[in-house]
Amino acid sequence: MALPKKKLQGLVAATVTPMTETGEINFCVISQYVDYLVNEQGVKNIFVNGSTGEGLSLSVPERRQLAEEWVTKGQNKMDHVIIHVGALSLKDSQELAQHAAEIGADGIAVIAPFFFKPVNKDALIAFLKEVAAAAPEVPFYYYHIPALTGVKIRAEELLDGIQDEIPTFQGLKFSDVDLLDFGQCVDQNSQRQFDLLFGVDEQLLSALAMGATGAVGSTYNYLGKKTNQMLEAFERQDLSLALNYQLYIQRFMNYVIKLGLGVAQTKTIITLVSGIQMGPPRLPLQKASKEFTLNAEAKLKSLESHCFH
Amino acid sequence: MALPKKKLQGLVAATVTPMTETGEINFCVISQYVDYLVNEQGVKNIFVNGSTGEGLSLSVPERRQLAEEWVTKGQNKMDHVIIHVGALSLKDSQELAQHAAEIGADGIAVIAPFFFKPVNKDALIAFLKEVAAAAPEVPFYYYHIPALTGVKIRAEELLDGIQDEIPTFQGLKFSDVDLLDFGQCVDQNSQRQFDLLFGVDEQLLSALAMGATGAVGSTYNYLGKKTNQMLEAFERQDLSLALNYQLYIQRFMNYVIKLGLGVAQTKTIITLVSGIQMGPPRLPLQKASKEFTLNAEAKLKSLESHCFH
Amino acid sequence: MALPKKKLQGLVAATVTPMTETGEINFCVISQYVDYLVNEQGVKNIFVNGSTGEGLSLSVPERRQLAEEWVTKGQNKMDHVIIHVGALSLKDSQELAQHAAEIGADGIAVIAPFFFKPVNKDALIAFLKEVAAAAPEVPFYYYHIPALTGVKIRAEELLDGIQDEIPTFQGLKFSDVDLLDFGQCVDQNSQRQFDLLFGVDEQLLSALAMGATGAVGSTYNYLGKKTNQMLEAFERQDLSLALNYQLYIQRFMNYVIKLGLGVAQTKTIITLVSGIQMGPPRLPLQKASKEFTLNAEAKLKSLESHCFH
Amino acid sequence: MALPKKKLQGLVAATVTPMTETGEINFCVISQYVDYLVNEQGVKNIFVNGSTGEGLSLSVPERRQLAEEWVTKGQNKMDHVIIHVGALSLKDSQELAQHAAEIGADGIAVIAPFFFKPVNKDALIAFLKEVAAAAPEVPFYYYHIPALTGVKIRAEELLDGIQDEIPTFQGLKFSDVDLLDFGQCVDQNSQRQFDLLFGVDEQLLSALAMGATGAVGSTYNYLGKKTNQMLEAFERQDLSLALNYQLYIQRFMNYVIKLGLGVAQTKTIITLVSGIQMGPPRLPLQKASKEFTLNAEAKLKSLESHCFH
Repeated sequence: MALPKKKLQGLVAATVTPMTETGEINFCVISQYVDYLVNEQGVKNIFVNGSTGEGLSLSVPERRQLAEEWVTKGQNKMDHVIIHVGALSLKDSQELAQHAAEIGADGIAVIAPFFFKPVNKDALIAFLKEVAAAAPEVPFYYYHIPALTGVKIRAEELLDGIQDEIPTFQGLKFSDVDLLDFGQCVDQNSQRQFDLLFGVDEQLLSALAMGATGAVGSTYNYLGKKTNQMLEAFERQDLSLALNYQLYIQRFMNYVIKLGLGVAQTKTIITLVSGIQMGPPRLPLQKASKEFTLNAEAKLKSLESHCFH
Repeated sequence: MALPKKKLQGLVAATVTPMTETGEINFCVISQYVDYLVNEQGVKNIFVNGSTGEGLSLSVPERRQLAEEWVTKGQNKMDHVIIHVGALSLKDSQELAQHAAEIGADGIAVIAPFFFKPVNKDALIAFLKEVAAAAPEVPFYYYHIPALTGVKIRAEELLDGIQDEIPTFQGLKFSDVDLLDFGQCVDQNSQRQFDLLFGVDEQLLSALAMGATGAVGSTYNYLGKKTNQMLEAFERQDLSLALNYQLYIQRFMNYVIKLGLGVAQTKTIITLVSGIQMGPPRLPLQKASKEFTLNAEAKLKSLESHCFH
Repeated sequence: MALPKKKLQGLVAATVTPMTETGEINFCVISQYVDYLVNEQGVKNIFVNGSTGEGLSLSVPERRQLAEEWVTKGQNKMDHVIIHVGALSLKDSQELAQHAAEIGADGIAVIAPFFFKPVNKDALIAFLKEVAAAAPEVPFYYYHIPALTGVKIRAEELLDGIQDEIPTFQGLKFSDVDLLDFGQCVDQNSQRQFDLLFGVDEQLLSALAMGATGAVGSTYNYLGKKTNQMLEAFERQDLSLALNYQLYIQRFMNYVIKLGLGVAQTKTIITLVSGIQMGPPRLPLQKASKEFTLNAEAKLKSLESHCFH
Repeated sequence: MALPKKKLQGLVAATVTPMTETGEINFCVISQYVDYLVNEQGVKNIFVNGSTGEGLSLSVPERRQLAEEWVTKGQNKMDHVIIHVGALSLKDSQELAQHAAEIGADGIAVIAPFFFKPVNKDALIAFLKEVAAAAPEVPFYYYHIPALTGVKIRAEELLDGIQDEIPTFQGLKFSDVDLLDFGQCVDQNSQRQFDLLFGVDEQLLSALAMGATGAVGSTYNYLGKKTNQMLEAFERQDLSLALNYQLYIQRFMNYVIKLGLGVAQTKTIITLVSGIQMGPPRLPLQKASKEFTLNAEAKLKSLESHCFH
């Protein structure tokens, strides 16, 4: 990593973890999954072992093995393979960070510990710093998702002076709808040295207007192509077309969210769209219902046949 | 109201209620306040007796008298005077709605009742309908602010078929950061028959990108001019300039929010910027601290002297 | 009120407000309601216009008229008629307090204002003090119900020194499950000068063990007799029998809570048990479903026929 | 475990994990800790690797080693050594359960998974069942702590029919203040076949009145003796004395809770009382402040010198 870092561009898919019917990781389809993302969705960056990937439901040995598989299979195909190494146990997180460095990951990401919650910025930084130090040459991303973790330390406060504490700091996965906080991150990042990746897919356009440099999310597994079109329209300052794409995407999201969208359901949708069997999730998640699958499939078809207004 | 409705355009200022040191309404400065908004801030629409206006802290007779004052003093100066008539008691709300009609208000708005909360869309619609029916020729706005009311019925669901129930329905004050919900309102409003007014001032730009037709908020009392410049930049599709304005506004907002921004503090800021004495709030709110006032004043000065980057 | 205050003893029923089918107050049955409470339930204290009484859904004139009716009809029958005079508007609350004094109420109670929430003890005390001062000879109760109001100022902190601020302070309606807070109120009240009335009916026994001096609640409208038996068992230190009564009561509560217990449903249950038509609630509440009524009725019957184990 | 199960009686101390200044487990003092609990506090049951024990901040190998140490050192001294084996990863939890069986633990306990939360009783049971099956002869406890996990499935619903699903089910650590739910568990447990252990130490008396069969908590590390006295008074039906003990305990708890009580602070208090160095916590927790230590120490002294009123 003495070489200049590659700039992260475009979408990052938060990958699901393919599983067999008994809830074991199905490593066999990773290679196919990589090709699908690149060729069918135009997505060349991935975020592995995150919440979508059920990373926290896997054991440490499983997370290592899976990370390795993604890095290996992504080689020369993916631009960025970012490994989520967050864990409740600092020791686990450090082990995973060091391992990510060894296998040549392009970045590591860490969620705030959320059982015992850091009570302030200093406590959070102290934890993150220890993890980052275990992979001292790997770009480090903080995964900010207060609705899931309950850790409400503002990202803009965290960002302030962070490189003094974590020299490898490279950016945020910002999975929140507080665009004042996000905007103030953008304001601090005027030289665009950091990747400010927005993580609430269904309202990405609002964050692009607010200065997002990219996006990480689970929907880019199946709406990557459509979202790329939105990005292009936005880039050309064709806001009206960009909004049309965003509303199209929202129609599907809104529908499946009401049906109960979670990781199990995301796996089902990706299976439907890609043809690759992603399998069920692991407990405590439970398989998507048959009804969900049928409804999601019908909605996908109906939207595809639907022209833009 | 047999005449075609005037189209609501641009910003709507949620007015504060000027008070004397003893917490009585100070009607004397309303006229001056109107002129200030129009001349200094370029704001020609107002939202009266809302949360910023401490409407729910006033008695029914006070709300009537104050509404009348705003309508009278706004005549020929304001484009739209919208009176918030929401109350916990349906009877109070109906009385206020009928009164608003009598004095010639341009619209009425109603917050969801929030002590007993409507359990579903039907219960909410049933309540709103009874209020709207008391002013059958006055455009009706629903004031959606789930973080304050705890009423989480999605606006897009409420909108669906609402004109069958409330023929005077004219739009939303959408004070929430859920831009999926907001986007789905926009999606339903393709003929732009409704006013979809965004109410989270510090991230207005994100909602404009998502299709907002306007905005209502307390900051337009003192950042109206700057926000109008942002609107113009956005209109010209100069997103980069629009973002600069938004970030400028955010810098101030972020600062005062951390100091503890509430209605009392808003009154102080407006007093500082306009020179009109808005006075303290009424209990249970308490006067802004001296420290807040000094810090806010210093920040305003420092930002004014600051060029755009 | 120059006379020594009567000591409040035993249960206080939080009354519902009888209504006609169109949601108007049905004053005609108040007298019958009083007799029912005294004769059938053994309850000689009432809490009027509270949350169970839909006090905040009534207009100020309605609240005055209803308070008067209860005081009049309760004369020589009820020991304590406490009028809830809390309101979002301090002016309304003061008017109601003064009126309660004029009609000879035995006490007034005030909920914390909950739209704008007092930010600390001082702000809350400042508000309560202004209300209490409008009825300077009437015993004052603070109605603590943080789950409904969102005002989380601890009761034990409020109690500390309260008589210096509110000389008429007489006690608490403590509607919360934080029995550390409650216990610390008890600890401060070692001379039992205050009434510490517990307000979570389904777990009253736990609060008796913690030192409660009485109880206020909606279920005493229909489970008053059974609860009185529990109180007597507790008084005799027969904990095992007291627990049997509590579990009996819980069986019914648990059942109806799962069916969706609210004020509308409480009205239905009281109608079933007393034979007095309490009518529907006022919007935004909606009438209990037919299904609820049938199920509640069946459960009441099944429990009655059930011997104690 | 073919032998009849020993009945769990009295208090269970949720142990802290002694650590060195660098956050490594300090195994050396476990033996001394066991003796202290038994001899000084009269506590003969322990709950190991739970939230107080920072179990989720330890790696799986650390948890195994620590469990083994407690079982070994507790032999012939402790009545029940219960090992908490809950984890976000089912695999980890199963491994720990199997290990607990191998080392001869008297029970295992499992917290609800709380990153992905089970959406209903079935999902929760499915998860717990898989863990329990890995230790098919070890009594199983469900650790119910909704405020920490966000899993709000009612304990009384979980209990209903649980032995059909989990034959080793032996009881609950019920760490919640919903005593309707708890009472309904008691109601189902009329043959007292399960241990219903209450887990909110500062209001244990309220749960005893409601039928608790015992208690698990962190304060029994330093208030075990005093709490045992409360239990004895309650057993003798001397409620007034029991309340005096409870209020005494609350005075200390209320004080330290306001200072910011967490696991770090608990370690400090135990160090003060026992003289055994428990050390700092592991990140993301941070060492208790000097100020906390001094204040807690002073309070302990002041309470000790204080006679019962």
